[in-house]
Amino acid sequence: MRHNFLSAFIQIRLKTYLAILCILFVCTFYWGLLSLKPFTQHSQIKNRQLKFKYWEWICDPNSQQCKRRIPGIVSFGTSLSTCLMTCGPVQIWPLPTGTLSLSRNTFSFNHKQIKTNIITSHKRVEEKLIKCLQLLKKNIEVIDREEDGGLLENEVIVTVTVTGSINDVRYMLNTDETYRLLISKNISTINVAIHALTYLGARHGLETLSQLIWRDDESKCLKIIDKAVIHDSPYFTYRGLLLDTKHQHIPLRAIYRTLDGMAMNKLNVFHWYLPYSRYTGYTNSEVYTKDDVRAVTEYADLRGIRVSVEIDTANHTGFEIDYGDSTPCNTPPRESSCSVLPCENTNSTKSNTTRVVSEKYTDFLNLTGSDFIHIGGEFSDAVDSRCQNQSSEVTKTEYKNNGLVLDSYVGNTTGSHGGNIKHFIVWSKSFDSNNLNSSTTIIQSRVESLWNELERFANEKFRVIVSHRDKWYLDKLPHWTTVYRHRPWADLEMSLRDYALGGEACVWTHTIDEHSMDTLMWPQAAALAERLWSDPEDHLDGVMTRLSTQRERMVSRGIDASVLGPKWCLQNPNECN
Amino acid sequence: MRHNFLSAFIQIRLKTYLAILCILFVCTFYWGLLSLKPFTQHSQIKNRQLKFKYWEWICDPNSQQCKRRIPGIVSFGTSLSTCLMTCGPVQIWPLPTGTLSLSRNTFSFNHKQIKTNIITSHKRVEEKLIKCLQLLKKNIEVIDREEDGGLLENEVIVTVTVTGSINDVRYMLNTDETYRLLISKNISTINVAIHALTYLGARHGLETLSQLIWRDDESKCLKIIDKAVIHDSPYFTYRGLLLDTKHQHIPLRAIYRTLDGMAMNKLNVFHWYLPYSRYTGYTNSEVYTKDDVRAVTEYADLRGIRVSVEIDTANHTGFEIDYGDSTPCNTPPRESSCSVLPCENTNSTKSNTTRVVSEKYTDFLNLTGSDFIHIGGEFSDAVDSRCQNQSSEVTKTEYKNNGLVLDSYVGNTTGSHGGNIKHFIVWSKSFDSNNLNSSTTIIQSRVESLWNELERFANEKFRVIVSHRDKWYLDKLPHWTTVYRHRPWADLEMSLRDYALGGEACVWTHTIDEHSMDTLMWPQAAALAERLWSDPEDHLDGVMTRLSTQRERMVSRGIDASVLGPKWCLQNPNECN
Repeated sequence: MRHNFLSAFIQIRLKTYLAILCILFVCTFYWGLLSLKPFTQHSQIKNRQLKFKYWEWICDPNSQQCKRRIPGIVSFGTSLSTCLMTCGPVQIWPLPTGTLSLSRNTFSFNHKQIKTNIITSHKRVEEKLIKCLQLLKKNIEVIDREEDGGLLENEVIVTVTVTGSINDVRYMLNTDETYRLLISKNISTINVAIHALTYLGARHGLETLSQLIWRDDESKCLKIIDKAVIHDSPYFTYRGLLLDTKHQHIPLRAIYRTLDGMAMNKLNVFHWYLPYSRYTGYTNSEVYTKDDVRAVTEYADLRGIRVSVEIDTANHTGFEIDYGDSTPCNTPPRESSCSVLPCENTNSTKSNTTRVVSEKYTDFLNLTGSDFIHIGGEFSDAVDSRCQNQSSEVTKTEYKNNGLVLDSYVGNTTGSHGGNIKHFIVWSKSFDSNNLNSSTTIIQSRVESLWNELERFANEKFRVIVSHRDKWYLDKLPHWTTVYRHRPWADLEMSLRDYALGGEACVWTHTIDEHSMDTLMWPQAAALAERLWSDPEDHLDGVMTRLSTQRERMVSRGIDASVLGPKWCLQNPNECN
Repeated sequence: MRHNFLSAFIQIRLKTYLAILCILFVCTFYWGLLSLKPFTQHSQIKNRQLKFKYWEWICDPNSQQCKRRIPGIVSFGTSLSTCLMTCGPVQIWPLPTGTLSLSRNTFSFNHKQIKTNIITSHKRVEEKLIKCLQLLKKNIEVIDREEDGGLLENEVIVTVTVTGSINDVRYMLNTDETYRLLISKNISTINVAIHALTYLGARHGLETLSQLIWRDDESKCLKIIDKAVIHDSPYFTYRGLLLDTKHQHIPLRAIYRTLDGMAMNKLNVFHWYLPYSRYTGYTNSEVYTKDDVRAVTEYADLRGIRVSVEIDTANHTGFEIDYGDSTPCNTPPRESSCSVLPCENTNSTKSNTTRVVSEKYTDFLNLTGSDFIHIGGEFSDAVDSRCQNQSSEVTKTEYKNNGLVLDSYVGNTTGSHGGNIKHFIVWSKSFDSNNLNSSTTIIQSRVESLWNELERFANEKFRVIVSHRDKWYLDKLPHWTTVYRHRPWADLEMSLRDYALGGEACVWTHTIDEHSMDTLMWPQAAALAERLWSDPEDHLDGVMTRLSTQRERMVSRGIDASVLGPKWCLQNPNECN
């Protein structure tokens, strides 16, 4: 009897439980249906943290693309970020050039679980590596918003080894930038080993590592690819970005942001077009001081970037520098023809000019510690006619021959700096190349791409940096594919390829300032960065998705890079028109 | 004896004083000379607050331009900001259309010295004016960084009077936007009187007032023009900006920023191209809720802006809205052809479609309180061929005739909303205008400007909003002068002018998102704002300087508007190439 009662009781309770379960199930299901109309549903939810998951993501095995679908009662998919990192093209930018093998499995951790080791016999390298690892942790911390995500016992141990013979951390034209990156897993530990010959190589390895780490929006913890072998080195030595801070004063915060973006894309020369004058600054805060140049140099050094300062010394200059008796004519500043004060010719035949210019160059070389210098240009064609009329000393012919003048400038500069300058860079169209020494001179070609200066100068044994204005002048708003697909060396004979030293994107700031520069600079400069690092074949398969991932990384680090397209198109690049 | 001693003592002290003064003078002078070489000088100065003044500014009486010069021992010039506000063109944007008389004298105060009065018999108007005056104070506080600048006894008293008969604060197509602004001075008090018939007029007056107030960088206090008479009202009623939040999700913070920019330029319709679906949002945070629409509407109302929501209901839609049996074919979402999910045709012959669409329209009208609605478009040409093959009910002919369909949509909507809809807006090229009622329909012309739809529709007695894609689609990056100089009504007969209701700048966001939108939107949309408010003659004298001042105001309020040129060119617009 008692047994029967108990069994009946259990049966009733069982039925009640079942009924409750059913009701719960129906409620959940109905709520799921409701979510099909988010506009109605969301109005009740205040804090935008919806518990219901709209989408899950599956890696489509045929197309190797992430496809979204409505989650069922039990979810088998992943978050979009994790799907992107483990499906289809490898999400590294710029693409490594050597061995590249990545696992599709992931490992969860949080930013406090990163341990670091440094192995090197060079004090200066070690010092910089300590800072560089701190930077890596900081960049990872930014994306890891939850304090205690990940399993507590998990660890990521990063070991950086630099074995080369150079106790210098700065980029030179012959610096080896190669690195090897190995990731392996040992139960609850991820071991990351980065090996390089130089600080620069190690830094690049750490940059790549940071791209293999992301935040999973669902589990709210960091993830890392759990196995990887990457051997990587750049195709081109010189990978530059010019920022013009003369036509607009760009505050240091924006210069630092630009250097951050460059480091993320392994660009290695910051060509700083700098005013040497109070005349361009309209207010007291619009000037750069020596301390500013030092600070920018230090910030850049840590990020594997060489600062290369260019100041105007020829006929874009004038009373911004005290030339004594060397300004050849008494015309008022030619404000109109160069749109910033001052514009004036100098008389390069006077020894005083050489002295003054060499002094300035020496100043900047001491500040930036560079082994090359940008001489500028604007010599040949732009002699002010008013000036020619006034001074018989200055003629067009004289300016045409100023290869000699350049040599005298640089000759003196070398002396002042203790023989350290091995190379100087000069804009093309500035000179008669017959007078220049091809072993020391590098020419930066800034003509339209169809002119093919690269081949001409390579035949004359000059090394060339390409900055074709129709392709790589970012202020002219080229589409990122225009920047990316341009391969000026495509038709160059193999024997001449070595003369192509690299390329440089230029940002002239006539109508750009700190507020708009990020948008116009990125991700276009990132597109050039991959062209110069990896020089991939001319197709765009998977490139847009990968560049878009890189763009998201840049945005997460505070850079206002442009978006490449609607999300659906980024996921399905071949299906959008 | 004592007298002599005293006199000798005084003489010695006098000499000492003179000597000290001389030394001081020489030091000051030498320091002044040194400042000619700021690069060298500044390296010692840490906090960028240089005491030495680089420039002072003088209003050149001939050119009416601010000219800079090196200050002498005694300075007679002013700061750049004060020179700009008191020399040359009036720095108001958009330019007032009636009486305009401004003193060139200034009055110093700080933001705590502003007192306000409101005179109106309408409760709702008073409530909004209180908030609007708070907003004015907040905007002024932003630029007044010093706490206690200005003379303590100075006061600025702002009195706003609204005398019209309408107890509504929202913009309708027939709202009177006229205002009068008077500034007068009474010893240590500035009296500002703003008079208008509506809240909107009063708000515009306060906006203009905020443009007559600036911060003087030297005295570090606020300044205001001390006498002014301004009568102002817009040429065109409808001055819109379309923001597409479907191709990219634009977070509310960026929408608010856009509304701030619109208010500063007296634009009055925010055309919100809104997704009605969870399908466009890839993550849970990328959706808008009803609360969001309400919040945006409230934010806009305060700033004199009407929110006009457009959702896709024809063949850019599909399973984002539950049409029951009204989707005519079972094709998968046409993702590729419209680049956002979903794209599908609806069958407008089924009564269910009409019911569903009317319901959505009613929803939005209730949320935004608008008296007009944007019907969208994309009817005539874009019927999916896959769909046509599957369903005999849907043919191109049927879509061509859908003026009737629109009428039935709107007819039903009117019913649901209590007879409040007097006007609906439809994209041109969407329909056969024979079937439309010109007394209720407004056509938004989005063709190339050479098509001259304005004249054609005006002849058919339709009111027209111009959005020529080659001129006013801001995502196509037109130069601000292209936007500004376009006057589609220039050749229209006077009798037809009234059919030109206004214009709208469009920002389609295929490759624009919150990070790049400010730069591409401003100041181009500001250029359109003046075209629509003031419709000035086609010359650019002084316009660049004035727009540049407006751009600086926008930047100071947190909008990343593009810069128009190097500062020297902005000061000397005719001398730059």
